[in-house]
Amino acid sequence: MVDEHADPTVGELSEGAILRSILDRLGASNALVGPGDDAAVIAAADGRVVATVDTLVHGPDFRLAWTSAYDLGYKAAAVNLADVAAMGATPTALLVALAMPDSTRLSFVTGIADGLRAACRELAPGCRVEGGDLTVSDTLTVAVTALGALAGRTPVLRSGARPGDVVAVAGELGRAARGLRVLFERFTDAAHLPVPVDESVLAPAERDDLAAQLRPAPPVALGPVACDEGATAMMDVSDGLLLDASRMAAASGVCIALETAALGDDPRSALTGGEDHALLATFPHDRPLPAGFRRIGRVRAQGPDPVLVDGARYEGRAGWDPYRDWDARTG
Amino acid sequence: MVDEHADPTVGELSEGAILRSILDRLGASNALVGPGDDAAVIAAADGRVVATVDTLVHGPDFRLAWTSAYDLGYKAAAVNLADVAAMGATPTALLVALAMPDSTRLSFVTGIADGLRAACRELAPGCRVEGGDLTVSDTLTVAVTALGALAGRTPVLRSGARPGDVVAVAGELGRAARGLRVLFERFTDAAHLPVPVDESVLAPAERDDLAAQLRPAPPVALGPVACDEGATAMMDVSDGLLLDASRMAAASGVCIALETAALGDDPRSALTGGEDHALLATFPHDRPLPAGFRRIGRVRAQGPDPVLVDGARYEGRAGWDPYRDWDARTG
Repeated sequence: MVDEHADPTVGELSEGAILRSILDRLGASNALVGPGDDAAVIAAADGRVVATVDTLVHGPDFRLAWTSAYDLGYKAAAVNLADVAAMGATPTALLVALAMPDSTRLSFVTGIADGLRAACRELAPGCRVEGGDLTVSDTLTVAVTALGALAGRTPVLRSGARPGDVVAVAGELGRAARGLRVLFERFTDAAHLPVPVDESVLAPAERDDLAAQLRPAPPVALGPVACDEGATAMMDVSDGLLLDASRMAAASGVCIALETAALGDDPRSALTGGEDHALLATFPHDRPLPAGFRRIGRVRAQGPDPVLVDGARYEGRAGWDPYRDWDARTG
Repeated sequence: MVDEHADPTVGELSEGAILRSILDRLGASNALVGPGDDAAVIAAADGRVVATVDTLVHGPDFRLAWTSAYDLGYKAAAVNLADVAAMGATPTALLVALAMPDSTRLSFVTGIADGLRAACRELAPGCRVEGGDLTVSDTLTVAVTALGALAGRTPVLRSGARPGDVVAVAGELGRAARGLRVLFERFTDAAHLPVPVDESVLAPAERDDLAAQLRPAPPVALGPVACDEGATAMMDVSDGLLLDASRMAAASGVCIALETAALGDDPRSALTGGEDHALLATFPHDRPLPAGFRRIGRVRAQGPDPVLVDGARYEGRAGWDPYRDWDARTG
């Protein structure tokens, strides 16, 4: 049981007290100017900074019955670290805008901070939360901005794939989508509402799928490696391989031909499941792929279809669109 | 009347279609890599980037009955531009994380984009929205990250005020708080719920107060000027002059002595009203203040009180704390 007197709600605390509790969990700043002033000052040694933002909203993006504070913080960091990596950059700092009901317990807030710190430590050492913002909201929302350094590299865009290139991926495909299915199929009640997860009822593979959904571990360090090894195009796979590959194909003016034999035992999940946060990249065909990347297809000249699967148009849903696919009635 | 067929909800559109409508309103990118890839790449010529985030949440921070989409976008940009300016930096780019109900009309989204663009154009030419994120949420939320360039300057922190320095301010004090009072006193119904604003019933001064609340115009260009003119400490006044001055005093290890004679006709609002987004700065006493700044007090050696008003401790509420002062029942 939580001792409510030892774990106040944020509504019972001053903003300053909440901030101090968060900062205590984050460790020492790596910034030129860290938290505590009007803004942070972050090194950008080569005269450029990579910047991206991604938001997790209670309901569409996570459910409190399924997700711990730690996992929420971990995932909010991880999805943004992956976007920085997909440019060929190394993450340098996060800014976190946390909007939460005033009934939120302080332990939940510090749990988020612990998850943010762990994701940085495990996925992007040297990166840290260097700033942020606290607000009250009826809807728990974590918006993370990630900054990154290219260290002299040319950023790898979606638009550089050329016919003849090898299509490759680093990281998991389809696993996070299977983890989401585990949640909806195994941990909902008769009214389809989420109930707490009991991992003891799951097989080991299901637990791995669940971990990929709740605490994704994208291959952040491989983004700069891919850049150094000549990647011609790269992007984070967040909305499903088919949909994201079609975006890369459109940006590059090519066709991306995928091979299901390279997509493992569950090619349907690999093709259409969202939230992988794998790195999709294209490489010159005459060079070995960097360690951590595996071949999944070939770039062809542009044709009627942006993506082919085993040489044919894929029939069925391609991926996830938050404004089409989210249904608040079953949330 | 809005033609509902010509103004779909975001729930009726794909994410790509919404994004295209937004990007159409933002004008040409100034970034090395602008919107459309996994992350933006922004110039940071002197090897450093200033970064800050601030969030506006429906309920605590704005009410749709009172605030237009344009004003919401304008204010979301302005409050972040002020934080960049308070470091002595010039804003270079915004990232906007927009979380909104799927019943939101597209015209509302493009209105936010118009307001963001106008605030950049008027307050920080050269700055633009260079990235962002769209998500579904029950609670309309706008989280803006602002980046800025110091152009070789040493950032001006809160901690540099020295005894003997002149305390000065640029921008309005108290006006936004009076504007909020106008809203609560003149534009609520018998149940204290917001009703639409009819400016025609207001006196000219009330309209100015309302504009300061809904479309704040902080003196962004004066941040770098203050730095160049030797400001020893600087910060954005967002939670009320007294509270923010006490933060500067604590960070600097000094006492800030304010003089109400310099605070205009309504010193109480100037001292305690929030959301000014004025620049509070301290300057060496033997140099003229830069144009746009006016003297409001003097820095003294640290004593029992961080802030004095006309030489005495101020009795009463010092400012605004979102976790103590926001009451959802009257929101």
